[in-house]
Parts: sequence; structure tokens; C-alpha cells
Amino acid sequence: MVVIFSTFPTSEGERVGKYVAKAIDIVDKSGLPYQTCSMGTIIEGSWDEVFGVIKKCHRALRKGCKRIYTTIAIDDRRGVKKRIKGKVNDLERILKRKINR
Amino acid sequence: MVVIFSTFPTSEGERVGKYVAKAIDIVDKSGLPYQTCSMGTIIEGSWDEVFGVIKKCHRALRKGCKRIYTTIAIDDRRGVKKRIKGKVNDLERILKRKINR
Amino acid sequence: MVVIFSTFPTSEGERVGKYVAKAIDIVDKSGLPYQTCSMGTIIEGSWDEVFGVIKKCHRALRKGCKRIYTTIAIDDRRGVKKRIKGKVNDLERILKRKINR
Amino acid sequence: MVVIFSTFPTSEGERVGKYVAKAIDIVDKSGLPYQTCSMGTIIEGSWDEVFGVIKKCHRALRKGCKRIYTTIAIDDRRGVKKRIKGKVNDLERILKRKINR
Repeated sequence: MVVIFSTFPTSEGERVGKYVAKAIDIVDKSGLPYQTCSMGTIIEGSWDEVFGVIKKCHRALRKGCKRIYTTIAIDDRRGVKKRIKGKVNDLERILKRKINR
Repeated sequence: MVVIFSTFPTSEGERVGKYVAKAIDIVDKSGLPYQTCSMGTIIEGSWDEVFGVIKKCHRALRKGCKRIYTTIAIDDRRGVKKRIKGKVNDLERILKRKINR
Repeated sequence: MVVIFSTFPTSEGERVGKYVAKAIDIVDKSGLPYQTCSMGTIIEGSWDEVFGVIKKCHRALRKGCKRIYTTIAIDDRRGVKKRIKGKVNDLERILKRKINR
Repeated sequence: MVVIFSTFPTSEGERVGKYVAKAIDIVDKSGLPYQTCSMGTIIEGSWDEVFGVIKKCHRALRKGCKRIYTTIAIDDRRGVKKRIKGKVNDLERILKRKINR
């Protein structure tokens, strides 16, 4: 499954970069395929792999902060893999076909 | 922590009630405090309690469906409990104070 | 369409009740059907009605705060109305049928 | 403000690429800065610019489909611009500093 998540404190002032960086560092060390976007981090894996990582991230932020907000969206489609790039590639293919018509 | 989640198939046609009902049934049997809204189910508990339930719901839907979409939002504030009702009560108190001024 | 949204500052410390109350007050005055949950406010109406209200809420918070986070989810199903209660009623009907079998 | 959104039908079967491509085409023609990710499209602009585009996308899908689900998250921080790349650049800077220590 492909999952986008975003975790940040709402209690520590407007600058949250150092907290988000902590989470990305954890994702990076997990070994799972991922992509960092400006509105969240996308990772791919099984439920236990992905939520193992997100739990670690959420917990890491929770240690130093009074209030954490975390959003997660899961796209779980049977029988497909390598969808972080695959989904975008598919869209590009469809868009190209459109233009060539 | 207080968590809202929504899980539904995107592959089985516009009517998804019977799938969502399956999820709510699982939440109900979990024993965790919860509230069913028209845009998701709110539950309260520890990370492992809450995600144990959401995983079960997601998995139950996944069995019969080709593609599942699940969204989750977590509000994790230190040192507070009974926030499903507590948060709404707090808001009502603030709004009442406003009117009485 | 039925829409859940949540808007809050991430820059003003852990307590955000007074900001969220401001938003609910705006929703209340809009005249649109709504429900306040602990993880967001659900409103129902046309695109322009609903987003007219959410824009007002977001703007009201933005005035006094350095950073605002707003999440929105839209369920737009053709040919249906009164879905804030209707969706929950449908689920209850399905769950009851299950138990009676 | 920086906004991620995702709009797709839940009523037309598991393959939604052609619908999502329609939305990306609309975003592309809007002239706003954007980035396509596997879990959503990120755009940057004022409220009216961004929601003008999202409304168009949602409406375009609505024409041919019975039920549309759209999720949106807004990060609105005062006094900043070019944040689609800027936010990721900031994170990379923080992560590099960490490693060099």
C-alpha cells in the first residue's frame, strides 16, 4: 500500500522544520521506499511496515512536544507494487496520450 | 489520543454502506470510546489500541474489495483524556461565554 | 455535498479552543446544516455555500495567527440530500439488520 | 498558501487514472506552480486561485461520475512564498546539518 503522512507539533510555534526533519530521518532509516513532498511524506510497504515507521515518527515528536497532529491517507490496491513512482508514471502516460490525439 | 478515521472501497460502486458498517461493528466490539459521524468514526485510546482497531477495519474491507482508501487524523495532546466529548464541551463553553458577554 | 473540515493555528501554542470556537460561530451563522465533532465540523451544501463558509473561517483565524492548518474532506454523491444525519441513519439500519439476522 | 488535494471517483471501479489525469490537466493549465505526487497534487497560490482550480477539478470529475471524494490540506503561513520547493529545501538543510555534526 501507498501511504502519505504528515506529523507536526501544533504547540511549539510556527517553525516546525526541526521536528519534521526528525520524522524524515526515521523514515529514511527504515529502508522503505519513500518520497518527501512539501505537504507530507509518501511511503510504501505492508501495513505493519508502514505503521511501524509512522508510530516511531509520531512518538519521536511526542517526546518533546505538548501536542502533535498527524494525518495519514492510505491507498491500498490489490496486486500492485512500486506505486510511488508507478502512479505518477501512469498519469503521465494518460496525459501524453491525450495530447497526441 | 483522539483519532478520526474513514475507510471505504473505491472499487465497488457508489454504495459503500455495508462496508462501512462492517468497520463500525469492529470499532463497537473493541470496547474503545467512539462516535460515529457522517464523515468518519472518532475513537480514543493509546496508539496501539486505536491502530489495532483501524488495522482490523482496513483488513476486513480489504478481503472483499479490490481497492481501499483510508484516511486518519490524530490529535495527540499530553495529559488529557475523555476528549471525544471533552473537546466539544470546551468549545460550547467558549461559545457560551462569548454570547453572554 | 457533505464536507468535514478542521481549521486551527499551529503557531499559537497547544490551546486552540478560542480559535476553533470562532470558526464554529461563523458556521453557525451561515445557516447551513452542520454538526460539531471533536475532530472537525461537518457541513452540507453546494460547493459555493460550503467553501464560502470555510474560506471565512480560515480567514478569521488567519488574521490573528502566523500559521494556519486546514483539512477538508468532501463526499459528493449525486442525487442525495440531508446526508449529515442520513449517512449515519443508513449505517444504523444496516447494523440493526445484521444483528436481527 | 501551499495546498495538497486529491480528487477521485469512488463509484467507477478501481481504475481512476483517467479521472485523476483530467484534474492534473486542469491544474497544469491554471498556470499555478504545482507538483504531482502519487497521493495528491500540490499547488501554491492565494485562496481564490487555489480553490478556483480545485473546484474546476472536482466539477470536471463530477460530470461523469456518481460519487466523488476529495481531500484537501492547507498550510497557510504568513509572509512566505515558493514553499512547494522551499519546504523540502529547508528540511534537506536541517537534515544535512544533523549529519555534519
